[in-house]
Amino acid sequence: MSELRQNLITRDWVIIATDRAKRPDQFANPKQLVAGLPPHRPDCPFCVGNEEDGTLETFRLCDRTGWKVRAIRNKYPALSPTTERMRISSGIHRTMSGMGVHEVIVEHPRHDLTTALLSIEDVANILFVYRERYLEIRKYPHIETIIIFKNHGESAGTSLEHPHSQIAATPVVPSQVRNRIDEAVRYFDDTGDCLFCRTLEDELAAGERVIFESKHFVAFIPFAALSPFHIWIFPRRHSSSFDDITDPEITDLAYTLKTVLAKLYYGLNNPDYNYSIRSVPTTEQGTKYFHWYVAIIPRVSKQAGFELGSGMFINTALPEESAEFLRSIVIPTSKDLGEIES
Amino acid sequence: MSELRQNLITRDWVIIATDRAKRPDQFANPKQLVAGLPPHRPDCPFCVGNEEDGTLETFRLCDRTGWKVRAIRNKYPALSPTTERMRISSGIHRTMSGMGVHEVIVEHPRHDLTTALLSIEDVANILFVYRERYLEIRKYPHIETIIIFKNHGESAGTSLEHPHSQIAATPVVPSQVRNRIDEAVRYFDDTGDCLFCRTLEDELAAGERVIFESKHFVAFIPFAALSPFHIWIFPRRHSSSFDDITDPEITDLAYTLKTVLAKLYYGLNNPDYNYSIRSVPTTEQGTKYFHWYVAIIPRVSKQAGFELGSGMFINTALPEESAEFLRSIVIPTSKDLGEIES
Repeated sequence: MSELRQNLITRDWVIIATDRAKRPDQFANPKQLVAGLPPHRPDCPFCVGNEEDGTLETFRLCDRTGWKVRAIRNKYPALSPTTERMRISSGIHRTMSGMGVHEVIVEHPRHDLTTALLSIEDVANILFVYRERYLEIRKYPHIETIIIFKNHGESAGTSLEHPHSQIAATPVVPSQVRNRIDEAVRYFDDTGDCLFCRTLEDELAAGERVIFESKHFVAFIPFAALSPFHIWIFPRRHSSSFDDITDPEITDLAYTLKTVLAKLYYGLNNPDYNYSIRSVPTTEQGTKYFHWYVAIIPRVSKQAGFELGSGMFINTALPEESAEFLRSIVIPTSKDLGEIES
Repeated sequence: MSELRQNLITRDWVIIATDRAKRPDQFANPKQLVAGLPPHRPDCPFCVGNEEDGTLETFRLCDRTGWKVRAIRNKYPALSPTTERMRISSGIHRTMSGMGVHEVIVEHPRHDLTTALLSIEDVANILFVYRERYLEIRKYPHIETIIIFKNHGESAGTSLEHPHSQIAATPVVPSQVRNRIDEAVRYFDDTGDCLFCRTLEDELAAGERVIFESKHFVAFIPFAALSPFHIWIFPRRHSSSFDDITDPEITDLAYTLKTVLAKLYYGLNNPDYNYSIRSVPTTEQGTKYFHWYVAIIPRVSKQAGFELGSGMFINTALPEESAEFLRSIVIPTSKDLGEIES
């Protein structure tokens, strides 16, 4: 018989379908591991030498050899900066101008790399640019929520090969975020504790769902993971918003994120995935009840009518087994791979 | 500039990305329209003659020629019936035995048909069996939510070709459902009206998002549709739960559902889709504030990191344009197609 588990942070009930559970390696990507991409493509807008005229660039991290990471405004933005916020309420309809921010982070000059294969320093550079842009975008008028996210692979919603991620800032608090905050506030009111800190303590005490621990971060599969290999990375230090991250924490998160993504890369054969960095809305910065974190969702299963019709999820992987599997994955060193250190 | 719209029923804010909007026909499925399936497959467990030994069957609708629609227990159920409900609370973890119901509705004896191509009578037969099973499953112990859903096509989460849908009954109210009920109750308390009835009135008055109207039902694209061609079918008569549907309403819903799915079939080249029938939890049956409905989600776009990281959606189709497009689609008659009436 399967088991229902409730995630107290999201309040979602998940069906852990143990009867139809697959072995962890059955979730591996059937496609070729090495995509065989060229290091540079003449027709890629993100490759070195193909940069647009510079009017879209908002930040550039450089060393002596050139840029390492760039932030550019999205050419076809879902939301655009403006000083005016227009809200219209007409009967039961509410409309608002699509104000906000939508930027692309070009993660590396090379076309053929991905976070799992980058050096820790390279990943730290990306996170550094995330923080720079977060701090800047927070100052824009009417911004309420800032979401940093990455789509890796076609089933994760991207068609661009060049490694990149995105930052979007919205003039509203999404209802899903609001519901979770309400829960966190209620838990705080009842116990005086941050629900996320408590979850982290519990996961560390149990140990069986932890994938990787570093000095400042812990990566684990949530007790009620929504889908196979759904992973959360929590900072050990309580902080409600990503832009509060310190320099040593950036290096350490780079180490943790790269390790976890490399375990997915080698363990599940470079699966498509999304990650997002969730922070408290900007107007509630510094709060004691919310804790920022990274969520990674490998796209190894599909949402179907049950999920869409109920908001509940069926997970065909046992979180404890998935975590054990990922713990066991050894990441080859550059030397093993005969790789050129980029 | 894009526009933000709020769906008052779900409270979701959606970004209608008009700047990157595609024309309606650009969402069409690139694959071949006629899948060329055989009417019968010797290896299909749902085809006539291949029925399992009968121990799984819970209902059978027959005429003189044999069965028309069958309900069977899922061979690999996500939830199973039992009389015991075990709930364990340990620290912040909540677990429950996976009790509930998970049945498959085999919609037609023929392997190669789909709802869009069935006769209205055939579709009415399917809906009749939904109601029969709903009424029966409601009596099972500890059932709180019953979801009827269909996965059509691989990207909608099915690998079985034979036309079928599913019924799942859970021993909890999903948090998403609970949040929506809370909103509906609040609206009812504030106004004395059902928010769904009010939405229907508004959509009929505006007209621009209505796709199809029949005597008892209205199909429309919600003002803040989550994704391209996201469709809702509302009963005109206030009722909180699908099992309350009358016989004439079943025939009329069959006509409406078939028409809408056929418009998608011919207009977007047989896209993969999910539909679900949402009712109030069984313990709140008969309530004035909730209204059952059918939601159809064609799988013509992908959720990416932004959606997963925020719960907000970006829709690259303008609801008014999608509705106009679907209104214009003429469904060929069987005679035009030279089809054999099944």
